[in-house]
Amino acid sequence: MPNLLLKARLALELPEINRALDTLIEKLPAPVRPAAGHTITAGGKRLRPLLTVLTAKLFGCRDRKIYPLSCTLEMLHAATLMHDDVIDNAPTRRGKPAAHTLHGVTETILAGDALLAAANDFVASYGSPALCSIFSRATYETAAGEILELHAMHNVSLTLSEYTDIIRGKTACLIRSACEMGAVFAGAPDESVRAISAFGENIGMAFQMVDDALDCASEESTGKPTGGDLREGKLTPPLQLYRLGLGGEERGAFDKSFSEGTFTSEEIESICADIRGRGLDTKVREEADVYLTRAREALEKTPDCAERRILMQMADFVRDRRK
Amino acid sequence: MPNLLLKARLALELPEINRALDTLIEKLPAPVRPAAGHTITAGGKRLRPLLTVLTAKLFGCRDRKIYPLSCTLEMLHAATLMHDDVIDNAPTRRGKPAAHTLHGVTETILAGDALLAAANDFVASYGSPALCSIFSRATYETAAGEILELHAMHNVSLTLSEYTDIIRGKTACLIRSACEMGAVFAGAPDESVRAISAFGENIGMAFQMVDDALDCASEESTGKPTGGDLREGKLTPPLQLYRLGLGGEERGAFDKSFSEGTFTSEEIESICADIRGRGLDTKVREEADVYLTRAREALEKTPDCAERRILMQMADFVRDRRK
Repeated sequence: MPNLLLKARLALELPEINRALDTLIEKLPAPVRPAAGHTITAGGKRLRPLLTVLTAKLFGCRDRKIYPLSCTLEMLHAATLMHDDVIDNAPTRRGKPAAHTLHGVTETILAGDALLAAANDFVASYGSPALCSIFSRATYETAAGEILELHAMHNVSLTLSEYTDIIRGKTACLIRSACEMGAVFAGAPDESVRAISAFGENIGMAFQMVDDALDCASEESTGKPTGGDLREGKLTPPLQLYRLGLGGEERGAFDKSFSEGTFTSEEIESICADIRGRGLDTKVREEADVYLTRAREALEKTPDCAERRILMQMADFVRDRRK
Repeated sequence: MPNLLLKARLALELPEINRALDTLIEKLPAPVRPAAGHTITAGGKRLRPLLTVLTAKLFGCRDRKIYPLSCTLEMLHAATLMHDDVIDNAPTRRGKPAAHTLHGVTETILAGDALLAAANDFVASYGSPALCSIFSRATYETAAGEILELHAMHNVSLTLSEYTDIIRGKTACLIRSACEMGAVFAGAPDESVRAISAFGENIGMAFQMVDDALDCASEESTGKPTGGDLREGKLTPPLQLYRLGLGGEERGAFDKSFSEGTFTSEEIESICADIRGRGLDTKVREEADVYLTRAREALEKTPDCAERRILMQMADFVRDRRK
């Protein structure tokens, strides 16, 4: 049981985090609560709150006000999911109906705005300009990353460096911010904040790359439809590698279907099976491992304690996850 | 020329404010700039930035950093307009094509998110928790006000107190925040911040009520289509007064068309002409004047100087505007 420490700590922290989230949802104004509460309580790994709580404790913080603070980036995350689902016209989120299918598009856009604003307002109530900056920068970078991604849709000539910019904005930035928030709240010195920031950023990059690899996994193994990225026109690393392996004529056909968004479900299944057959998803996980090594190196610069060991195990969890 | 002081000062301040806005737009990431820049530069009275600049100067501030700060609530305002236009599917904004008709719905939602986040981030860069709180509370209350308004659409039993809650959120709160921001930046004492906050809130309430009265004015006098609120199902004060003046049968017919949103353009024209004929729009302006008297009383508690005289003239401007 290599993740024993992590699992034991999850059993302690998750109920606290979920309680704090429930309290914050209760405080939302009545008209915002249905759509926002639905999205927040629909599930999720609570990775961001956990990172905030663990990094705060890593730097010696024992103040229980860390729990509500740790929920603010999860609220921001939920607000972006609400807008994303409207934009993608997605019917479900984490296996449940997406908020806009139950509460309407208008209400979901406005509730997303209000949820984000409430989270922002709650961060400001801590009276720390540094915490405000972390939160507002996270909001900004996430939105900018999503706009970059939107512009890259159905674009076969997307480079790996453009892809890296997109996932740094849309995923890594929130995870990095979660770590910074905990460290800043704990009053960690600047050098330590920089170290934990690098840990978070690299964990975040790896997390998204593993996610992109998992998108090609079979539905039996993950419980999610295979090839969503291919369907939506996102040229993630496994798809880039697959495309580069195609000969001239095949590649021309791929490019046409990709840019026009006309792949059939059978073609998507078959391409993803091919990606797995050629080990391209494994190759992407190896790339992710480069980021995880950097994350571990950054973490070595922080105090040696139980929380550091748990955070090391989180790096393993990101690498090994199968769904 | 009773507004001479105000006009002379506008001629000085507006170019500074517009320059600061241009600089902030330039700093937005490339993909956000088209939709956001379009909405911000499409016009507007710059009422909020002006109030921030004038209140800062009222309390003795001479720091030019007030100009970019004063633009942040205007950016928030533009972000909400972008989302509103998407929600209302409005073809135009201030006589020009709305952002989403040129740049797409998805891009406009995301650009609104990014613009708001950029403004928030810029406020945080001033390093003042009080400024962060003003900004985040303004975002939150504006969104909550819009959701209240959404729930009240096509509802004939809306009370005046519910209406008041709606406009306090969707309009007065931003104007109040603009005044608070200037005072806080200038380092005004708490008592003065409270006074200018009351000034802003009351000016904002009056501004919206005059706006609602103007919505019933003829298109020749304002240059805007008559009766937009009636068309959208917003039971503003002139419409409430009109409805209360109807006999049983007429009121039943009004209520049916109002709740179903089925008024024809001719009916809307005729109802608005009736409202003017009965002097109901004038009555609403008188109600607005009650708020303006409160605004002037609050302003009396601040230092007697040129800026106070200009702010007094702004109260007259709100009362007298005809478009």
